[in-house]
Amino acid sequence: MESKHMLSILQQVQEGALDIHTAYEKLKISPFEDLGYAKIDHHRKIRQGAPEVIYGAGKTAEQMEGIIHSLLSHCPENILITRLSEESASYLSQRFPLTYDKLSRTGIVNRKECITASGTILVATGGTSDIPVAEEAALTAEVLGNRVTRLYDVGVAGIHRLLSHVDSISKATVIVAVAGMEGALASVIGGLSDCPVIAVPTSIGYGANFQGLSALLSMLNSCASGVSVVNIDNGFGAGYLASMINHIGGNES
Amino acid sequence: MESKHMLSILQQVQEGALDIHTAYEKLKISPFEDLGYAKIDHHRKIRQGAPEVIYGAGKTAEQMEGIIHSLLSHCPENILITRLSEESASYLSQRFPLTYDKLSRTGIVNRKECITASGTILVATGGTSDIPVAEEAALTAEVLGNRVTRLYDVGVAGIHRLLSHVDSISKATVIVAVAGMEGALASVIGGLSDCPVIAVPTSIGYGANFQGLSALLSMLNSCASGVSVVNIDNGFGAGYLASMINHIGGNES
Amino acid sequence: MESKHMLSILQQVQEGALDIHTAYEKLKISPFEDLGYAKIDHHRKIRQGAPEVIYGAGKTAEQMEGIIHSLLSHCPENILITRLSEESASYLSQRFPLTYDKLSRTGIVNRKECITASGTILVATGGTSDIPVAEEAALTAEVLGNRVTRLYDVGVAGIHRLLSHVDSISKATVIVAVAGMEGALASVIGGLSDCPVIAVPTSIGYGANFQGLSALLSMLNSCASGVSVVNIDNGFGAGYLASMINHIGGNES
Amino acid sequence: MESKHMLSILQQVQEGALDIHTAYEKLKISPFEDLGYAKIDHHRKIRQGAPEVIYGAGKTAEQMEGIIHSLLSHCPENILITRLSEESASYLSQRFPLTYDKLSRTGIVNRKECITASGTILVATGGTSDIPVAEEAALTAEVLGNRVTRLYDVGVAGIHRLLSHVDSISKATVIVAVAGMEGALASVIGGLSDCPVIAVPTSIGYGANFQGLSALLSMLNSCASGVSVVNIDNGFGAGYLASMINHIGGNES
Amino acid sequence: MESKHMLSILQQVQEGALDIHTAYEKLKISPFEDLGYAKIDHHRKIRQGAPEVIYGAGKTAEQMEGIIHSLLSHCPENILITRLSEESASYLSQRFPLTYDKLSRTGIVNRKECITASGTILVATGGTSDIPVAEEAALTAEVLGNRVTRLYDVGVAGIHRLLSHVDSISKATVIVAVAGMEGALASVIGGLSDCPVIAVPTSIGYGANFQGLSALLSMLNSCASGVSVVNIDNGFGAGYLASMINHIGGNES
Amino acid sequence: MESKHMLSILQQVQEGALDIHTAYEKLKISPFEDLGYAKIDHHRKIRQGAPEVIYGAGKTAEQMEGIIHSLLSHCPENILITRLSEESASYLSQRFPLTYDKLSRTGIVNRKECITASGTILVATGGTSDIPVAEEAALTAEVLGNRVTRLYDVGVAGIHRLLSHVDSISKATVIVAVAGMEGALASVIGGLSDCPVIAVPTSIGYGANFQGLSALLSMLNSCASGVSVVNIDNGFGAGYLASMINHIGGNES
Amino acid sequence: MESKHMLSILQQVQEGALDIHTAYEKLKISPFEDLGYAKIDHHRKIRQGAPEVIYGAGKTAEQMEGIIHSLLSHCPENILITRLSEESASYLSQRFPLTYDKLSRTGIVNRKECITASGTILVATGGTSDIPVAEEAALTAEVLGNRVTRLYDVGVAGIHRLLSHVDSISKATVIVAVAGMEGALASVIGGLSDCPVIAVPTSIGYGANFQGLSALLSMLNSCASGVSVVNIDNGFGAGYLASMINHIGGNES
Amino acid sequence: MESKHMLSILQQVQEGALDIHTAYEKLKISPFEDLGYAKIDHHRKIRQGAPEVIYGAGKTAEQMEGIIHSLLSHCPENILITRLSEESASYLSQRFPLTYDKLSRTGIVNRKECITASGTILVATGGTSDIPVAEEAALTAEVLGNRVTRLYDVGVAGIHRLLSHVDSISKATVIVAVAGMEGALASVIGGLSDCPVIAVPTSIGYGANFQGLSALLSMLNSCASGVSVVNIDNGFGAGYLASMINHIGGNES
Repeated sequence: MESKHMLSILQQVQEGALDIHTAYEKLKISPFEDLGYAKIDHHRKIRQGAPEVIYGAGKTAEQMEGIIHSLLSHCPENILITRLSEESASYLSQRFPLTYDKLSRTGIVNRKECITASGTILVATGGTSDIPVAEEAALTAEVLGNRVTRLYDVGVAGIHRLLSHVDSISKATVIVAVAGMEGALASVIGGLSDCPVIAVPTSIGYGANFQGLSALLSMLNSCASGVSVVNIDNGFGAGYLASMINHIGGNES
Repeated sequence: MESKHMLSILQQVQEGALDIHTAYEKLKISPFEDLGYAKIDHHRKIRQGAPEVIYGAGKTAEQMEGIIHSLLSHCPENILITRLSEESASYLSQRFPLTYDKLSRTGIVNRKECITASGTILVATGGTSDIPVAEEAALTAEVLGNRVTRLYDVGVAGIHRLLSHVDSISKATVIVAVAGMEGALASVIGGLSDCPVIAVPTSIGYGANFQGLSALLSMLNSCASGVSVVNIDNGFGAGYLASMINHIGGNES
Repeated sequence: MESKHMLSILQQVQEGALDIHTAYEKLKISPFEDLGYAKIDHHRKIRQGAPEVIYGAGKTAEQMEGIIHSLLSHCPENILITRLSEESASYLSQRFPLTYDKLSRTGIVNRKECITASGTILVATGGTSDIPVAEEAALTAEVLGNRVTRLYDVGVAGIHRLLSHVDSISKATVIVAVAGMEGALASVIGGLSDCPVIAVPTSIGYGANFQGLSALLSMLNSCASGVSVVNIDNGFGAGYLASMINHIGGNES
Repeated sequence: MESKHMLSILQQVQEGALDIHTAYEKLKISPFEDLGYAKIDHHRKIRQGAPEVIYGAGKTAEQMEGIIHSLLSHCPENILITRLSEESASYLSQRFPLTYDKLSRTGIVNRKECITASGTILVATGGTSDIPVAEEAALTAEVLGNRVTRLYDVGVAGIHRLLSHVDSISKATVIVAVAGMEGALASVIGGLSDCPVIAVPTSIGYGANFQGLSALLSMLNSCASGVSVVNIDNGFGAGYLASMINHIGGNES
Repeated sequence: MESKHMLSILQQVQEGALDIHTAYEKLKISPFEDLGYAKIDHHRKIRQGAPEVIYGAGKTAEQMEGIIHSLLSHCPENILITRLSEESASYLSQRFPLTYDKLSRTGIVNRKECITASGTILVATGGTSDIPVAEEAALTAEVLGNRVTRLYDVGVAGIHRLLSHVDSISKATVIVAVAGMEGALASVIGGLSDCPVIAVPTSIGYGANFQGLSALLSMLNSCASGVSVVNIDNGFGAGYLASMINHIGGNES
Repeated sequence: MESKHMLSILQQVQEGALDIHTAYEKLKISPFEDLGYAKIDHHRKIRQGAPEVIYGAGKTAEQMEGIIHSLLSHCPENILITRLSEESASYLSQRFPLTYDKLSRTGIVNRKECITASGTILVATGGTSDIPVAEEAALTAEVLGNRVTRLYDVGVAGIHRLLSHVDSISKATVIVAVAGMEGALASVIGGLSDCPVIAVPTSIGYGANFQGLSALLSMLNSCASGVSVVNIDNGFGAGYLASMINHIGGNES
Repeated sequence: MESKHMLSILQQVQEGALDIHTAYEKLKISPFEDLGYAKIDHHRKIRQGAPEVIYGAGKTAEQMEGIIHSLLSHCPENILITRLSEESASYLSQRFPLTYDKLSRTGIVNRKECITASGTILVATGGTSDIPVAEEAALTAEVLGNRVTRLYDVGVAGIHRLLSHVDSISKATVIVAVAGMEGALASVIGGLSDCPVIAVPTSIGYGANFQGLSALLSMLNSCASGVSVVNIDNGFGAGYLASMINHIGGNES
Repeated sequence: MESKHMLSILQQVQEGALDIHTAYEKLKISPFEDLGYAKIDHHRKIRQGAPEVIYGAGKTAEQMEGIIHSLLSHCPENILITRLSEESASYLSQRFPLTYDKLSRTGIVNRKECITASGTILVATGGTSDIPVAEEAALTAEVLGNRVTRLYDVGVAGIHRLLSHVDSISKATVIVAVAGMEGALASVIGGLSDCPVIAVPTSIGYGANFQGLSALLSMLNSCASGVSVVNIDNGFGAGYLASMINHIGGNES
């Protein structure tokens, strides 16, 4: 666990190969580098199967091409690109083996399935319009090494649809509940399950939903315990967090 | 359907008992009086059993005493007083036969049960803290001549509590769904029933519920059809509207 | 009222035709199916004349074509499509007998008039710009078997226009009041009538109307009793709820 | 129209009684003083009868006593104090001839009636709870020399009450419309009249009125022309502006 | 002042030319017609020079053509069209003598100058970007028979620009202050003048101006007396109200 | 996994001990009871050590006494009471062995330490004023069987305080980050750790923090992955969720 | 500038007095301590005269007593306490030489005047109600070693009051502009001066000022360059920042 | 310091060359002109190197061409144009020597480097998406004669990136911190430095960032002292203010 870099500097001082003022200058910034290495270290663990993520919004296809080339040098598989437009996907697919999901606008370079956690993540949506956000969460979780069950269009206005899947709910290690409009899905699922529920409000709806504010407030005020909330439409964040939690449960043997 | 007042003026003109300028002056304002009468007429129908309502907030006990005396002259029973403080209730109960409900702060002078509509109004709440608002709705509806079923603390976080009363829900003519926090009750009940659901957001909760805004937005964005919303904490409005709808279904025979 | 499905399973167990473990598996989910059937049952009643509704926003013409084909198998008439673009309407009209209303962007496949409720629904608007939302409400109500009276452009800034139609108002069983800007129409109509008023705020206006928030708050705070509110621009919701209420008044004989 | 002060300085320079550098120093700030005088000049006209106003909120009775003493030296009558608590009023009334209105918490020292404008200001309210704000407007206008007609509790939910006073409305030179809740009064009055309407939203109501925001937005979005809005509960501002407009119409002869 | 229509009915009854039941039917609705006539009457007075206004937003060029034809039958001059697109203006100018102002997107059919009020309206803006809204106000006021002085780009960040026009400010009968961003212009002008100031917040700015909310709140909270506010970007409303107030001051002789 | 209750009914039918109609009646509601049992079952697992929680806000001391008596019958230890006032705590402590924490206003009846999860929960706060909310989270987690490390007053304005505890951060299984004002703590901790971070915005601060809105929005928009948010001041919710996640990591052996 | 602590460790390694693993452990956390020292170092410069500040809100008098004792050990003068209640001030003044300002609720222990910057800070307010916040800023700046000029009640509604002090404005090195209501003061002062203006919105006002939001938005949207904003009512923050900027201009010689 | 213009008028009066009424007319407006001159005077000082700025948004290329020609007559270098579109830049670059930065959409005519202040301005961003706003700030500061250090993509989620540049932070005279999303960068930098930090919230992000509101509130509530805030995306304002503060520190020698 000790830092080789710091130890090597100390050793050189001990051996007289380095004067203490030069050593001081080197050491002054090394802890931050160490912090950085540490971060990469523990990241490596969780990122097994998906070492890097590119947020595609606001990046040109050419910029992404460059980033992918750079990443491929030390990470040959499962590079995830979120918010990837169809045009950019088309450009990249001519240069890399790219799996592209139109609905969620998610791309994966050199996709390779690999389950690293023993539990299951359930991704549920209130309506069919919430599916793009849900798929971003599901694909993120899959790329990060998780088993994912999808349960779409089980909104609370037709509660029997949800209840007929109570088994899937009770088997999940962690649940991602994606809903727009009144966002009640998170509360109902939270009441039916005893595992963590990550609520994702979507901007689906019109009028007084105010671009997702309605579902956001609803989910924050959930009367069910075990529910927490990520940003509106943040499928990636929910999938990433779900993977973190799922990996706490132990690796796939 | 013709107005006796207007016809009598016209008759006096025809008979020469009234000159046309005096008649004109009388007629100029009579339509509004007629409008007024008409309003009182059709109101009489719905208000059988509870001719008048006093909004108690901001009125002194003495002011309310005066109003009640005046009302009693033409309406001997079931005078409803909402938002009535315990102090004022104590004062009034020494002067009138007053039924007072502490929880909802509702008083009824000369209460007399009398069912005038054949259907049933179901009043449901998400939690126990929503009961004061629910009771204001229930008592209002009862005073207005309705049968009321109460179904309290059936919030969506424990959906089985609600589902075990699916019979009460299916038998109602109109439902008042009272909930704070995430306000999901209205959507779930709306999905389980095929009758009108009047949603009442309450200011119950804390933090990001913003004094009822959370439940209000949630209910306005309900994905269930047949749901409409009244103001935050407006139990009276919901009970009054529920009575209106219930009386459409025909009188008790 | 008993469920044939559940009873038949129990009978088979009684007769020894089914072992209890298989029966258990069948029963475990049947209540939910029953719930589902029940829902379809009571829905059938209210949906006489319009068994299904398609929310057209975000669906391709091809997707809607598929849904319509599926629906036509058990429901030959009056399939309602809301938020239907002109392009999709053009596509669908080449495949089905489609009645399309440009203004409200509403389509009806195999439209057939059929009045199933004895009362009348009045649909009123404050201005001419509110008419598209009002027509969505009116057409929805008509397809669901209701008589509809339209009273457009009777905004409160010219109160005499509204007053000259006081007869239509007093004859309605339920009123849909559609208004943008300051949304005062709901309160004024609520004061003139003694039937339920469903208020629909519209996003019509500019500046401090904040996309309908102004009319929404105004309607929620209506000083007239009997007024409830649906989401901004939600003509369909208002028409559907109005139909529910109107059918409480008894069927057309 | 010329400034005596500036001219006198120039004359002294012309006459050699003042060197130009001293004159420069005096002139450098005089325009601002002149501006000040000018302001006082034209204010004198409009303020005939009420030269000064004290905003009582946050001031102690002793502080107000001092200010009144100072004002009385050059203005013997009709000193207006708004937002004056009962306690402070009691203190001041032992020292000055004070007329105090409990409802609007307005005090007037040395009140003397004096009509200086020929027109009439109509002050109307939607409900009885709006009267305190309306009285602040009415008393302000009276103290400033205006004839005021009060028309209280004519809210739009009972439109016939308002219509029966259509004469008062048509005779007004300027109207102050005070309303809480949905604030529709301003639009209806704006539609019935052809004179300027100053709308005052009040914080009266509960729930989704959000301390007056509901009425404020409603009034800003009024579909009637000729309506403008002042701050929530700002009765003084409305009365002051109404007086300004009324005095444009010419003095009482 | 008496209504000829009502008197003639009464006379016919007196003379036996009309039975009272028929007379009743005729009278029942006539007050509203009278109300309507009255409105048109007093409207005629104020609208001298500009009898009609068309709100162009959301209307096709063809629709406007039809309305103009209809209006021209009883009002030959100064028909005002606000929010008129360049395309529609081009279409209409081939059919009517149309004066079109690109900046404010305002059109006037058969424009004819005619001053009917003796005072002057000052229209001021904070910046050059506020000019389109200001011009809508100024042109509206001119078409309605007012003398208008323009004072543009005198924002408070360079207060000397405003102060150098203190004469124009002091000569105005009513002032329209148009400003976006922090909207401080209304307060400063309100402090410099003693006439009514109509504040128009504009949506000019970015970021935390939230489409004009910043200027709106600023103007509503003005510490200067005599300031009232219309909706964001509502140049027409301000010009119309300014004309109302200016005409109180007496006609041009 | 099969339900004994349902199987026993089926067996009685098979054996002729129960007629099918009675069986139907029993079965009709049993799935919901089963659901309920199931819920209790899986709850039992997580609730080892703390079977029940009482939300003390709005409950009288007497009401809570009754609930505690009822709970004690089947759950002898670690009954948690949140939002418990000092007065009620004093009342209850005379009747039960109560551990009371003044700061967080949390009470525990029959407290007994018992660690059931192998990981550690880190609870961190930005300032000292956030500690009451943090303690509610920490005590909740402890009562639910977790090891808790406290790291208080490590706000980002003095980042070195946080950095000197980077070891505690890296050793946690799940982190609860409690902060008011700008709420940046969650992002910084999220960047330093690779475990789930539950962010709790507090209402600490003044002015533009708008009772916690500032921290809430900040945390929802965190640029660090792995961060989710619960309601403002919801320490209990965070502690409960943290316990859920921590127990995924396996039991203490 | 080098860290003695780190150098001493390195020296011990060099001399063989410390093995490298023990040295590593010591060094791992020292940079953060160094950071801490560094911070204290550069703070010392700016804090000449006022080494420590106590935020009094939410602290008991006894807690503050303890903190002051601790601070006095290394900082004998000018300990600033903000948001200090009268009661706590009374308690502390019996134990320490305390200068207390009632208006701004600011206390200073062992106050000693000492000017350390050559420039001048101007603190201006729009009204008298803004003075408490302004005094917090002014006293903070004075305690931090600055010359402060006060310019109170120069709000924009009476612009001549402000203009008559244009000299004070032009002589300031940095200006703190404190205003509630419409907050226009910052823009006007920003336009008159060419030095940095720190705008402090106050919560003074009522109605649509929404507890300072109005002034806050106004100031953020200032059309004058050189204006930045701190939190609502944050006098301390403004005074502290003003001192920072003023000390850039060089020390008092 | 005396105004030549005013003195010359006074001299002419003294010499009899000007009568006092004509003098009065001339003097009446001269102070404002003087104010104006004064403003230009002190502006000249700070604007050394960049006498004029054009806000390009909403201006045509032709309009800007005209303004530039006019400015060039008295200011030959460093004319700054913000919010300049690529199209307009292309047009202008054919007519003037224009340096154009695509990212920040900033143009500079006749750019000439010239450092006039001795300190350094550090411009930092949280992410790469914030760079356009940061570049607007940096280029503005450079054109105004400042040394600028850029520190981009040092967001708090990876705090080690920021910490490894702690030297740049400690050497800055003033810092501009540009961040979207949760805007925590300003607090962290504020805690690490002891110089003024100007925080610029950006509209970067999605969902609950509400176009920059999230970062704005976060920055206003910063727990670090010395932080103030400008409008969302207002890079120019931050650069301008930073230059003001940096020039307080003395000129480059």
